[in-house]
Amino acid sequence: MFGKHPVEAVLLKRPKAVRRLVIAGRESYYEAIIRDARERNIAVETLPWEDFLALGQFDESEKHQGILALTTPLVIFDDHDLERLGEASCVLALDQVSNPQNLAAILRSASFFHADAVILMKHRAAEMTAEVQRLAVGGAEFVDIYRITNLANTIDELKSMDFRVFGLDERGERTLAQTEFPKKTVLVIGAEGEGLRQKTRDRCDELVRIPGGRKAVESLNASVATTIGLYEIFRLRDRAPE
Amino acid sequence: MFGKHPVEAVLLKRPKAVRRLVIAGRESYYEAIIRDARERNIAVETLPWEDFLALGQFDESEKHQGILALTTPLVIFDDHDLERLGEASCVLALDQVSNPQNLAAILRSASFFHADAVILMKHRAAEMTAEVQRLAVGGAEFVDIYRITNLANTIDELKSMDFRVFGLDERGERTLAQTEFPKKTVLVIGAEGEGLRQKTRDRCDELVRIPGGRKAVESLNASVATTIGLYEIFRLRDRAPE
Repeated sequence: MFGKHPVEAVLLKRPKAVRRLVIAGRESYYEAIIRDARERNIAVETLPWEDFLALGQFDESEKHQGILALTTPLVIFDDHDLERLGEASCVLALDQVSNPQNLAAILRSASFFHADAVILMKHRAAEMTAEVQRLAVGGAEFVDIYRITNLANTIDELKSMDFRVFGLDERGERTLAQTEFPKKTVLVIGAEGEGLRQKTRDRCDELVRIPGGRKAVESLNASVATTIGLYEIFRLRDRAPE
Repeated sequence: MFGKHPVEAVLLKRPKAVRRLVIAGRESYYEAIIRDARERNIAVETLPWEDFLALGQFDESEKHQGILALTTPLVIFDDHDLERLGEASCVLALDQVSNPQNLAAILRSASFFHADAVILMKHRAAEMTAEVQRLAVGGAEFVDIYRITNLANTIDELKSMDFRVFGLDERGERTLAQTEFPKKTVLVIGAEGEGLRQKTRDRCDELVRIPGGRKAVESLNASVATTIGLYEIFRLRDRAPE
């Protein structure tokens, strides 16, 4: 794990996962992170640039910002762990989103708008690689990530836990802004370019849409559409922070 | 120009720019586009796959969807053309956005939310390449694109044309949803990771922010943040389409 934001995020969220924290260059540049680390009794090692680059196996194009953390892997939950979502309030489910950059941007947005969990498909979907974690700029740390085998079954299970399930789809009757999102909400997003599969759509309690669009530009990038959905749930539910 | 959506967009927006329109494979798959082309008196050529791939110089990874249009280049406006914006209502200005994927996603969102124009910097910013046009999935056709040399001067010129200029910045006092966007609005977006430069910020009439965020995830991807801004201007101004 490397770069200031991802390392800062892991220090905040799962400090026990950090096995080594290594910097190169001027200490003053990392002041806040060094303070965070010391508060959590994590030693900060300073290495010469050459050793730092070798340890991280970095090539010149990588944006390590002179800081890296060796950590235990991120915990990924699965079908058997869904009951952990009993106390969750906002859950995002991705139906076959396959582009790693989109997945990373979605994780970042989910953390930004305080979603509790992101559910991914085990098959035909982007993997949770180190690269996705890096592109999420720390966003992968603040949501629980689940990989499940069958989305229709998972939706049923979430419904039985009193979640209301909204599919983001241009065929929705109401727009996001016209919708009341209850305390326990699931937002389901379809694959890039294809939208929700019919069997997923049929399980949703309601379809909601983003207003806008025009002939030849009927849809938005998947991560962009997802973020608008998360933004509206955050904004409409909790007007206090506005 | 290739792929269904980009070709459909160019047929709708600037049919006179199309010099050749070529398809490969089954005609039925392109029915709507062939009809659009015939209405505009544009001949549709059908080529065998081999000739099609050679004409487009495609390799296997490219998503041409068996359709390509040879067109005159997209018109890019510059500093001297700004007076064309006299009738515009929503203008987006990008302060040094350098990632081509972000630029493409922004153009797509700008078209989706009916912005009139996108202003880019001539220097230290992503170029309007064929690849950006392809990634924008038709979005580059429905907004006028300007490349300018000095954003502060351009902002002053837009103000003198009665635009009110909003900078999207986490230091903003009000959120987007708390803001009234007048009929002539400019939204200014900063570079990835750095936000608005101080001299740009100082020229804005007002800074507005996106609610949300948390320690270590203080910001969103540039294209995602831009889209939320465009969405809110669209939503708050024109409630009729909701």
